[in-house]
This record gives sequence, structure tokens and C-alpha cells, in this order.
Amino acid sequence: MDDFDPAALHVGLAHGNGGRLMRGLITNLFRPHLGNPALDTEADAAPITLPPGEIVVTTDGFTVQPLQFPGGDIGALAIDGTVNDLAVSGARPLYVTLSMFIEEGLPMALLETIVTSLGTAADAAGVKVVAGDTKVVPRGQGGGLYLALTGIGVRPLGCTLGMAAIRSGDVVLLSGPVGDHGIAVMLAREAFGLRGDLKSDAASVLPLTQALLPLPGLRFMRDPTRGGLATVAHEIARGTHRRVNLDEGMIPISPATASVCAMLGYDPLYLASEGRVVAVIAPEQATTALAAWRALPQGGAAAIIGRIADPAGLDDPAVMLHTRIGGARILAELEADPLPRIC
Amino acid sequence: MDDFDPAALHVGLAHGNGGRLMRGLITNLFRPHLGNPALDTEADAAPITLPPGEIVVTTDGFTVQPLQFPGGDIGALAIDGTVNDLAVSGARPLYVTLSMFIEEGLPMALLETIVTSLGTAADAAGVKVVAGDTKVVPRGQGGGLYLALTGIGVRPLGCTLGMAAIRSGDVVLLSGPVGDHGIAVMLAREAFGLRGDLKSDAASVLPLTQALLPLPGLRFMRDPTRGGLATVAHEIARGTHRRVNLDEGMIPISPATASVCAMLGYDPLYLASEGRVVAVIAPEQATTALAAWRALPQGGAAAIIGRIADPAGLDDPAVMLHTRIGGARILAELEADPLPRIC
Repeated sequence: MDDFDPAALHVGLAHGNGGRLMRGLITNLFRPHLGNPALDTEADAAPITLPPGEIVVTTDGFTVQPLQFPGGDIGALAIDGTVNDLAVSGARPLYVTLSMFIEEGLPMALLETIVTSLGTAADAAGVKVVAGDTKVVPRGQGGGLYLALTGIGVRPLGCTLGMAAIRSGDVVLLSGPVGDHGIAVMLAREAFGLRGDLKSDAASVLPLTQALLPLPGLRFMRDPTRGGLATVAHEIARGTHRRVNLDEGMIPISPATASVCAMLGYDPLYLASEGRVVAVIAPEQATTALAAWRALPQGGAAAIIGRIADPAGLDDPAVMLHTRIGGARILAELEADPLPRIC
Repeated sequence: MDDFDPAALHVGLAHGNGGRLMRGLITNLFRPHLGNPALDTEADAAPITLPPGEIVVTTDGFTVQPLQFPGGDIGALAIDGTVNDLAVSGARPLYVTLSMFIEEGLPMALLETIVTSLGTAADAAGVKVVAGDTKVVPRGQGGGLYLALTGIGVRPLGCTLGMAAIRSGDVVLLSGPVGDHGIAVMLAREAFGLRGDLKSDAASVLPLTQALLPLPGLRFMRDPTRGGLATVAHEIARGTHRRVNLDEGMIPISPATASVCAMLGYDPLYLASEGRVVAVIAPEQATTALAAWRALPQGGAAAIIGRIADPAGLDDPAVMLHTRIGGARILAELEADPLPRIC
């Protein structure tokens, strides 16, 4: 009776109607791959237990096109993106909820691949999927699959991480090359024949954030996703009413991403990463933080890329890029997204 | 600078790109209407505080078509649906997260109406929107607007509500007429010219669930949404390995819904409600529970509609409907949804 109709090669509207086929899909596809005995698919709401500390929550929608790309897919990306929002807030991610909007006609095998990938990423990040929901929308009213996740985590009480902690003179760190995710998705989408070995950087940043949390000089962390490093710099400038000075020559960019950007006219500073962290830290602890990151597999290319400064005046530009040849240019706020739908 | 471009009559892709236009949309449209000072739209994750008790979470996606219908819209429905999943689990709903998938071209005025309605419903149910995310998908890849909400609530420690508590002889209660929501959405969708005064029942069921929680004989509650009352009866039968006997003549159905169903050939027992509760309770407390519901504005038509029984044998049908004329018929499990996309 509990069957999602293995003969069905594609998801149909009946897989989302609350009846027998939907129950089969949940029992035979979602539950085994999400691998969590606590995922009681018969209950309206799931109980969770949390360790002591401050509870933090985040939510994110995922609409990446195509659903699979070099280095990942929408399933792993959704877990990593949700985990990362909690991680940069100083929290340990513990639980996620998963809401799926499946377009009628999605190949069942692709759905299974994505759900498997999502489960693997959740295991790797140490989070449990505790509640889920499935809706099937008619053909032509969805992009194959959209996911919405909410993450719940806990951070130490009295955690003061945030824009408000940032001081002039603080140092800006970056954990690794920026823009690889944006370029990987773009290459998967377009028929450029440029694939090579360029892969998305999508990953949990939890090891990176946990490595810096013991440092009392740590002020703020954020992952440079939509809008890239330039957008994070603008968010910091706006949130602190200070200037962010970035040193172009110190910003790590992978050779493959740099050459694709040069060829196609993209600026990697505006492109998304999904496994990097920007951190702001007191100057006296910057080298300690840098060493901690460089000791991690994900942080080998970490670098000190800039500094927070007082604004020179009311019209002072918020973000300045100090170029390799000794000049400086204003790094403008993102207006039109060069590469939409990368997350 | 913080402007969502009031000249824009429709949502564009740039409203979802993480840049200036998206920030304007959040600052000028979402934040004021969601009316929660704790909604820090600049942070990756939001801290929340919870009272003592067991924490429960739920998630739900909303794809109702059309986005507005008599008695509600997708915004209020999303809050009520999420709140109700927590309420029937015995919890007091406290926080929700909100993920929006907006289709390019959605009229800005309609978005504002829906967000306003969502904020009003959240206030009425006593929940705060603590985190949000906005994605804009290209024209032709979304149904105008899809919402995904996650709800977080707290229930008393040691709450034993659930299928496992149900015993043979227990009584099944229903808080009010079923199917009004399904019919209201269907009439809004089709040009039947049958509107009359039929309205969706969408509402928070929190007053109903809180009224029964003090009764130690309360076993289980669920809101009959997708698949309707018949689907809840099947879920109970499956979860308890018992039979559910329903008394057709006792099931409240509003005259307007009954006549539309008779005309168009729908069975109201399979149609969604979004403001009703099915409760299973020990027989000795059934009349107390009924009186408690009938004392509430939402529970005036509450009724005892059935009873849990031992199965007569392996092939015993799970759900029997005892008809007005003294017969009995098997109430089959939902196969094809008569009215898709009602939530």
C-alpha cells in the first residue's frame, strides 16, 4: 500500500495531494534518504530538544538553475546555505525543516538524487531534518524544484557577534577564493564549452566559523552569497557607518574563475560563493585567526583582505578597492545581478 | 537610497537579487507590515527566546490558486495553516519564518495586500515573524507567489497527545462544518457565478485547541486540510490499527457547501477546511469537550461525529461511514484530489 509507484518516472500532481501517492513518496523516498528516525512523517509538528544557549533561526529559499552543477546540486546547496547562515551567526546548527515545491513532470530519478544529496549534506553538517512538506505545482508553474529551509541552532549565551561590535581599525579576513559557485552554476547553465575543472565551492562553513569563535576579538562573520564579497562589504559599511577598504591584490580568486571572468566580463567580487566566510576581527588577533583558518582544508587560501576605517566625510564612498597598481576605486553597490538564480 | 521603487507596479527580478531594490522591498514593504521590531533584516539568523516546555516545529508550503479568495488570501492562510499545525500538537505557536517565491510580474499592490494580511493574521494568532527570505523567479516559472513557513511553538512537558494515546471506544469530535475552504477557493477559481455568501473557514484554531488541552482524556487533535475529514479518519485508522466509525448525519456541513457539492458532484468529506479541528477524546469527557467548543465563536456547530473501534478482522475496512438512512459504507482513501491547490 505504501508505494510511490516505482513505475512513475515523473512526479505527478497526485504526489502532492495528501493522499496515498504522496504518502508513498514520503515513506519510500524522503524518509530513507533523510535518514532521521525522529522525522515522524505522520505528525503535524515535531518535538526537538536543544542544548543550553541562545536559540537562533534562519530561513532561505533555493531556486538555483540548473538543479545540478559541477560540485553540487540544489539539495546539498540548500543544506549548506542554511547551515552557513547559522554558522556565521556564531551558532551550531542542529535542525532544519524542509519545504519542497516540485514542478509536475520532474524526473523521479532526479528528485531521488537531490534528496539523497540533501541527506548526505545534512549528515555532514550534523543537522537533522525534523519536519517536511511537499507541494506539487502544475507543469509550467515552477522551475523544476524550489526548496525552502529553516535552520535552528544554538550559540553561547552572551554572544556579541554582529555589526555593532565592529570598530575602526578592525581587519577583514576572507577564508578562500570568491566567485567559484557563481561561475560553476553559470557554466552549467550555458553551453560555453568552458567547464574544465571549475567546481562550486558549496560546503558547510561550520569548521571555519567554529575555529574563530574562541577568539574574543572576533566581531562579525558573514558568508558572501548573493551579490558576493562586494555586497557583504556594503552591508558592513552601511551597518557600521564606516568605510571598508579592500586590498584587491590580497583577495583570493581561483585561476579558473579569474580567466572565465576575464573572458566573459564578470567581476568576481560580485559573484556568489557558497562555502566562504568574511570575518571582521580586532587587529591584534588577525594573524591568529588567519593561522587558524589556514590550518583547515577549507582555509588554505585564507587572507587578510581589508580594514575598517572611519569615514572621511559625509560623501565618503562606503567601499574602496585599493588596486594592484597602487590606485583606488569605488566599489559600487550591486545594481543588476550579473548572474541571477545561483542559489 | 532605501527605496523599493514606488514607480514599480510589478515585482521584477532585481527585487530578489540581494541588492538595492531587494533591500528597499524589505525595508519599505515587508518590515512595516510584518510589524515586528525583532525582525532584523540585516542579520543572517535571528535570536529567539522560548518559555519552558517542549519545543515543537512544523513546516508548510502554500501554493493556493487564486492568491485571494472569499474569506482570505495566501498570506493569512499561510499563517493560519502553520499556527494550526502547532496548535493541534498541543503547542502554543510563538514564532514563524517566512520564505517567499515571487513570480516576476506579480503586481506590487497585490504583494502588499498579501503581506499586510499575513501580518494581521500573525498578530491575531500571537506569532512573530522572526526571519524571512525573498526569491524572485522568472515569469512563467511560478504561480504568482508561493510561501513556505516554519512555525516554532512550545507545549507543556510530558504532553502525551498523539495517535499512540488513542483507545477503542474513544469519541471523535469535529469543531465545525467541513469543506468550506475547498469550496470557497474552487468558486474563486472557476467562473461558476455561484459565489453567494460562501466564505473560507480559514482561521487560527488556537482557541479551539487551547480549550481542550486541560482535559486529561484528550488523546489527539488534527486539522482536516488537504484530503479533508476522510483523510484524517484514514490517518487515525492507519496510525492506531483501529477502525474509525463516522456518523454521516452528525457531520456538520454548511448549507452553501452542501448545495454546491450536490450540484457539482463533490464529496465534502474529502474537501479541505483551514479552521476546523478533529479531536479524539475519552468517552467520559466527550460532552465536556463538546460544551467547551460550543462556548466558543468558532465552535458553535461542534459535534460528536464518530467513535474508534477494534477492527473486526484483517480485512476490516479502516473507515466506515454510517449513513443517515441506517446503512453503512466504506469511506475510501483519497486517490485523486478533487480540488488541488487549495492550500
